[in-house]
Amino acid sequence: MNRHFDIVTIVGVGLLGGSLGLALKARSIARTVRGVGRRQSSLDQAMKVGAIDTAFLNLEDATEGADLVVICSPAGHVTEALDGILSVCSPRAIVTDVASTKSLICARARKTWPVPQRFVGSHPMAGSEKSGPEHATPRLFEGCVTMVEAGGHIDAEARRAVCELWRSVGAHVVEMDPEVHDAIAARTSHVPHLMAACVSILAAKELEAYPCEVRALIGPGFRDVTRIAESRPETWRDICLTNRDAVLAGLDDMLATLGRIRKAVDESNGKDLEAFFDQGRIARGELLHDAGNNSSEGAV
Amino acid sequence: MNRHFDIVTIVGVGLLGGSLGLALKARSIARTVRGVGRRQSSLDQAMKVGAIDTAFLNLEDATEGADLVVICSPAGHVTEALDGILSVCSPRAIVTDVASTKSLICARARKTWPVPQRFVGSHPMAGSEKSGPEHATPRLFEGCVTMVEAGGHIDAEARRAVCELWRSVGAHVVEMDPEVHDAIAARTSHVPHLMAACVSILAAKELEAYPCEVRALIGPGFRDVTRIAESRPETWRDICLTNRDAVLAGLDDMLATLGRIRKAVDESNGKDLEAFFDQGRIARGELLHDAGNNSSEGAV
Repeated sequence: MNRHFDIVTIVGVGLLGGSLGLALKARSIARTVRGVGRRQSSLDQAMKVGAIDTAFLNLEDATEGADLVVICSPAGHVTEALDGILSVCSPRAIVTDVASTKSLICARARKTWPVPQRFVGSHPMAGSEKSGPEHATPRLFEGCVTMVEAGGHIDAEARRAVCELWRSVGAHVVEMDPEVHDAIAARTSHVPHLMAACVSILAAKELEAYPCEVRALIGPGFRDVTRIAESRPETWRDICLTNRDAVLAGLDDMLATLGRIRKAVDESNGKDLEAFFDQGRIARGELLHDAGNNSSEGAV
Repeated sequence: MNRHFDIVTIVGVGLLGGSLGLALKARSIARTVRGVGRRQSSLDQAMKVGAIDTAFLNLEDATEGADLVVICSPAGHVTEALDGILSVCSPRAIVTDVASTKSLICARARKTWPVPQRFVGSHPMAGSEKSGPEHATPRLFEGCVTMVEAGGHIDAEARRAVCELWRSVGAHVVEMDPEVHDAIAARTSHVPHLMAACVSILAAKELEAYPCEVRALIGPGFRDVTRIAESRPETWRDICLTNRDAVLAGLDDMLATLGRIRKAVDESNGKDLEAFFDQGRIARGELLHDAGNNSSEGAV
């Protein structure tokens, strides 16, 4: 018997919300999965692929009697959604979200929700360049790392339930402070996304003058460096807006390193350049060491 | 009958030189493949894997009677090697190289070699994070784009022979001016390598305080953006040193874009941020459009 929840309400049935519904139903983790959204078309699609059992346009109806509410709206909408959900759902309901940035959302909940807090922020590191419930898959969360909010203000039962939710769909749960999550994510994800876009823009500037030559000289290295530049602009706009301070700190650090490199190139300082590339190689090895680093991942 | 050359001399029997030897022999493109190098151990290894028929420590002996000489030394050594080869090999010999930067090398040849020039610069975009003749493979050049120097000063027979060399081992030849090659490569390869190292260094700064959290939050996006940071530091030092002006121009362009993004983040300017990410996405699509772009390459 896998059932952990009676009624789960998913707010926002896009790729993540739809995939969560499919996973909960495939593994019989919830008796009923409800979906609530702003657009009937997304709800219809989610019903069609079997991600939800019932569809709602009204938050109050959708959350009535739910024991778990998962907010799968874009990061920019979660903060405002939080207050609405607090005002309509039962005090015993447990609430979580899936947004990629956590400090603003969790700070808002701490300000308005009663303690011990039954809102527990989450960030499942799942997704793809695709979006929408039509691309939902019950296996989206399998093996994916999911951050769950840590802290003494969190209700113990709510914390356990949210960890259990993610584990039950195959995720690997790591509990941490929202601020730590955002500071690290700025450096491991948000600034790298900015870089991928910058590198794409940089190379495309030569396209008009030398279209064939530029396309010929693009190799697997460029493809890999820029792959994540194909992600949804709205998503990454919201991530930068909701993790402003950490992204700024990461960018300033990046600009300082680039300034150092520019000086070494300008002065033809081979010693500094080699030390820099060596530092980069060692850094990557240390970062991926515990995550099963494979030094022969592909072509340059 | 595939034979295009009688005696081919490979100067420097590392991964590229060794792989070229194996490919020439596997396809019977040359009657004899000679290897010349500074270290007996590399030559022994190249002999052992069957990449060369005979080994030399002396350039004059190695090039005597050769109809084709391929300089496979690191970029930093080619410029000096050029004059030595010109002074020892027969005037009818055709000479090429495989260095990743071309302007300095080709400019040096134009200055010292007689016209019509029988030195023709090449850049096969092949390689991996591995190095040394022990990793050589006869298939290294299959499907790889290879730039061959264009220009009215090049001897027509030499140009044809060098193009034929690369085509015969499976490469796709694209002829272009060395300066155009270097300006584009700075933006599609050299600056992206600098970025990959910068991003690795940026993320590793959080390792000391939060080792588990940082490693947990590293996803496939970070892995892809930084993969090429594992390349050999000496190689990339030499590339920056030998393509200084184009790398500086690329870096300055990058710094200007980053400054624009920093301002948008600082001012929480969602419109500019979305426009920037959109520009990045469109740029990548245009760059990879003709090269078989696949919009569902992997996870974020």
